[in-house]
Amino acid sequence: MPELIIPFFWQTPPAFLATTAATSETEPEGATILAAVLLSLIVIYFASKLGGELCARINLPPVLGELVGGVIIGVSALGLLVFPGGEVTASDSLLVQFLETTAGLSPAAAPSLFATTSEVINVLSELGVVILLFEIGLESDLKELIRVGPQAAIVAVVGVVVPFAAGTAGLVFLFDVAAVPAIFAGAALTATSIGITAKVLAELGKLSSKEGQIIIGAAVLDDILGIIILAVVASLAKTGTIEIANVIYLIVSAGVFLIGVILVGRLLSPLFVSLVNQMKTRGQVLLAGLIFAYALAYVAAVINLEAILGAFAAGLVLAETEKHKELEEQVIPVADILVPIFFVCVGAKTDLSVLNPAIPSNREGLVLAAFLIFVAIIGKTVTGLTVFGQPEINRLAIGVGMIPRGEVGLVFAGVGSASGALSDATDAAIIMMVIITTFIAPPLLRIVFQEPQTAPPIPTAPSLDAAIADGETQDS
Amino acid sequence: MPELIIPFFWQTPPAFLATTAATSETEPEGATILAAVLLSLIVIYFASKLGGELCARINLPPVLGELVGGVIIGVSALGLLVFPGGEVTASDSLLVQFLETTAGLSPAAAPSLFATTSEVINVLSELGVVILLFEIGLESDLKELIRVGPQAAIVAVVGVVVPFAAGTAGLVFLFDVAAVPAIFAGAALTATSIGITAKVLAELGKLSSKEGQIIIGAAVLDDILGIIILAVVASLAKTGTIEIANVIYLIVSAGVFLIGVILVGRLLSPLFVSLVNQMKTRGQVLLAGLIFAYALAYVAAVINLEAILGAFAAGLVLAETEKHKELEEQVIPVADILVPIFFVCVGAKTDLSVLNPAIPSNREGLVLAAFLIFVAIIGKTVTGLTVFGQPEINRLAIGVGMIPRGEVGLVFAGVGSASGALSDATDAAIIMMVIITTFIAPPLLRIVFQEPQTAPPIPTAPSLDAAIADGETQDS
Repeated sequence: MPELIIPFFWQTPPAFLATTAATSETEPEGATILAAVLLSLIVIYFASKLGGELCARINLPPVLGELVGGVIIGVSALGLLVFPGGEVTASDSLLVQFLETTAGLSPAAAPSLFATTSEVINVLSELGVVILLFEIGLESDLKELIRVGPQAAIVAVVGVVVPFAAGTAGLVFLFDVAAVPAIFAGAALTATSIGITAKVLAELGKLSSKEGQIIIGAAVLDDILGIIILAVVASLAKTGTIEIANVIYLIVSAGVFLIGVILVGRLLSPLFVSLVNQMKTRGQVLLAGLIFAYALAYVAAVINLEAILGAFAAGLVLAETEKHKELEEQVIPVADILVPIFFVCVGAKTDLSVLNPAIPSNREGLVLAAFLIFVAIIGKTVTGLTVFGQPEINRLAIGVGMIPRGEVGLVFAGVGSASGALSDATDAAIIMMVIITTFIAPPLLRIVFQEPQTAPPIPTAPSLDAAIADGETQDS
Repeated sequence: MPELIIPFFWQTPPAFLATTAATSETEPEGATILAAVLLSLIVIYFASKLGGELCARINLPPVLGELVGGVIIGVSALGLLVFPGGEVTASDSLLVQFLETTAGLSPAAAPSLFATTSEVINVLSELGVVILLFEIGLESDLKELIRVGPQAAIVAVVGVVVPFAAGTAGLVFLFDVAAVPAIFAGAALTATSIGITAKVLAELGKLSSKEGQIIIGAAVLDDILGIIILAVVASLAKTGTIEIANVIYLIVSAGVFLIGVILVGRLLSPLFVSLVNQMKTRGQVLLAGLIFAYALAYVAAVINLEAILGAFAAGLVLAETEKHKELEEQVIPVADILVPIFFVCVGAKTDLSVLNPAIPSNREGLVLAAFLIFVAIIGKTVTGLTVFGQPEINRLAIGVGMIPRGEVGLVFAGVGSASGALSDATDAAIIMMVIITTFIAPPLLRIVFQEPQTAPPIPTAPSLDAAIADGETQDS
């Protein structure tokens, strides 16, 4: 159809690769999609650095700045970085409007461009959290994690049971909420965002501390528990019953995966080292490491666990090899370009309009939210008290480290909302709880980790942590 | 609609971010898209390292191995990495079939997943060549480029005029091809793939040599000339006339862009350095550099030039700052994970079925192709003879460096084919010419750059080139 192709070719830059050329007027060309992605990345990097730098200057964790930077460019404020879904369409994206003005994007092609670009940014953001967990795994000490395993397990279980029981019971008995929505809200209280917690710990240089390793271990176990709980409540909402077979399947597959990876991984890691040593072309350590991490992330995703758990396990296994130093150094720049996409996107997707008291369901939700936030904070903070046999440990820090719900909490809200089980008020209350716990955890964690001013602060593991810390010093 | 969401949720892993959750059975979930992208990247990295390592062992440039690795996993052979377009659909992708078997992908959601995953990989591949040209710009010496500018300009112009005139005239007079398709084929002969040439030069450690800088300068100018020629022939094919205004617009915007960027960039680069020096959070040099590179790539794309030209210009400007060393080091791992995606995708999209003589139009095309390939090689090789005032220079290397048509040649074939101006035989002949010139250039270039064995080889600029070379030594 020459009438379509050639005029279209004139409106937009030539497609760099012929096979991505547009085949109709409603499909954007490859070069336009690339331009839209470049523009999105510029906005994301700018927001992340501006927010991060401002927070670093007022002694707050930079990752909070990245989240806030995301909120500012996102759906709640500027509308520069918005994602399809709900009532948001291409015309709500300032970025799409900018492309229509500057890049000759035709309005007919805008919805398709918006959908594709959003999907690309979503995938980059998810690759970001995969790389973050791979890096955290590389920085972690498997032996230490196994040693603190029992304590981490208790922290994880208490951090699930207490918020769930208190939240569900409180909603039913104090607020007269029906059982299913109360269970959903209770379930959302059990989540812990491993990404946000791990990033703050790295920024504080506390990742390798005993507290840090207990928090990471508990957050990983909490992620697995969260997947199981989500399966249970989703099944409850759908059929009113719990499908025991599914729950058993999830528990068994999670256990087999984690133990299997570590056993098989340790057997295979000498092979990894000898393979990498024989390779002669550029980037051999990094690419071999990423193939391993992506493969485990894929397996974890396929057996209904999270991809990030696979990446974390891959990092743990490779941390034991002699190549871990070189791999860590090369992962840093990759993390630098991908991880901010994740945090900025979490911020950008946060819809602060649930906090607007002018909307009736929000007013009702605010009361519920106040209760949920109270339970969310207390229910996780008490977990620090369960740590045994460690008189010197900072129990408060462990509890506070479990507070942020982050994107995991949003999954509960999303599934609950989609199932139709939640009222608008309950839905808004859950999202408010997720927002507040996510945004207060980084500064709280920094406060509770502050050493007493009398003794000079002794860095716990400066060499490892400094390399991935976002903190006050440049990494030049 | 709880009946849709919840059962779907059970088939695939939980969506990591609620907003990417599927809203219908024909749309794949976010986690499935991530799994598909992870799987594609594993296959791409594996093919690139296997091909690269094999080529390094038989003394061929590793990038040739990445291209061949791409061909093997691509549409011509295994079908692991295929892209929509033509007769290719989701069912032709082995990867999609694998996801249906392992990840519980429903056949109804397969076409949408295939389209989205392909688009994500396309964008990553285009980001790869953007990063490659940014890295090449960082390694280049602006002063040297300006000094060899006149020679590079003559090489570029001769390398456009000779193949175009010889190719078009030969097709019209020797093969009785009509004027418009002959002009299209002639135009396709003018292209030079800056990506492939630059990568091979870097692998040989010849990027900073005088020959290398002339080739890079000529390839950049050739890219601009190619865009103008493409505009002219596309306009010819459509209206039978040349739109002079468009041609003038392209020439002026290209000139203003390149000169403007270098002048403004040099004024702003002290600002860049002082800004980066004031930043305290991790990855400040890399992210500030990438913001600059992506911004110029965006501007270049928007004014109908190529995004890669903007990235190259950004690299040139930042190479002049005191931060260039640090930036170069941090760009290396980023290039290591993105650039192979580009080369493997170029290989994967190469459809070797045009070489199959069992198809009638290919038999006819083979004769035309033999002629085009002859003109393509001779027409670029002679450009080395035009270099003046450099008695010591390797003229053959300069000519050979301009041979690969790569993805730029495919754009001509794609636009020509879409306009309906090309017969099947001419189309096949152009694609054959592109394939042969792309795949023979890397080994040829290595041969012509071989120093005579009598004198010990003196590395021209070991420190810079070694850092980005793909060659025989590890970069550990």
